[in-house]
Amino acid sequence: MMSGSEPKLWIKIRLEQGEIGPGKIGLLRAIDHHRSISAAARSMNMSYRRAWLLLDEINKICGAPLAETFAGGHERGGARLTPLGSEIVRQFDEISKAAQTGAAEAMAGLHRLLER
Amino acid sequence: MMSGSEPKLWIKIRLEQGEIGPGKIGLLRAIDHHRSISAAARSMNMSYRRAWLLLDEINKICGAPLAETFAGGHERGGARLTPLGSEIVRQFDEISKAAQTGAAEAMAGLHRLLER
Repeated sequence: MMSGSEPKLWIKIRLEQGEIGPGKIGLLRAIDHHRSISAAARSMNMSYRRAWLLLDEINKICGAPLAETFAGGHERGGARLTPLGSEIVRQFDEISKAAQTGAAEAMAGLHRLLER
Repeated sequence: MMSGSEPKLWIKIRLEQGEIGPGKIGLLRAIDHHRSISAAARSMNMSYRRAWLLLDEINKICGAPLAETFAGGHERGGARLTPLGSEIVRQFDEISKAAQTGAAEAMAGLHRLLER
């Protein structure tokens, strides 16, 4: 019926205040990597404004800042994750991995169903 | 930091052709329940046109019809899931349940993290 690659699980987490999904987590990861919100935005092909709005949204969802900017010093300022931000990324990865592992057999069943 | 209900896992399945998530599966479930696409659309607060487009999309994603309309008989016509449609709903539920179970511990960890 169809061929091609296996189905993939895509997860989001719904909290009362909003959703945390791969988009917002990807932005946090990019900020951690680039140490700059503008560089993180560019790397995700996203406007600076959009990155700020997303960050503001996830901060509100979690009730505290997940990233912060800093000024001066050797690095001439930039941005970094807060300890909570790092933990949220780590926890999201753990949830994602556990969900994938848990659903692996059922996902293979879907793949077989669609390949018939 | 925040209080309230526990975070919930929200899953979608990504196939090469598109995504299957709770929205499309909900529509299939409603068609199965109401035996009518228009009644299913109403029950989901969705226009008839939107329901048809969604159905067309999921049929294309799966490469075969998941619902069909029938005419005449005692029921004066209506709609029903195809055997593949029923199996897709069942398999999605199984994947969803397995993912939730697999991720339960890590989700509790996220809850604790956000409640601190």
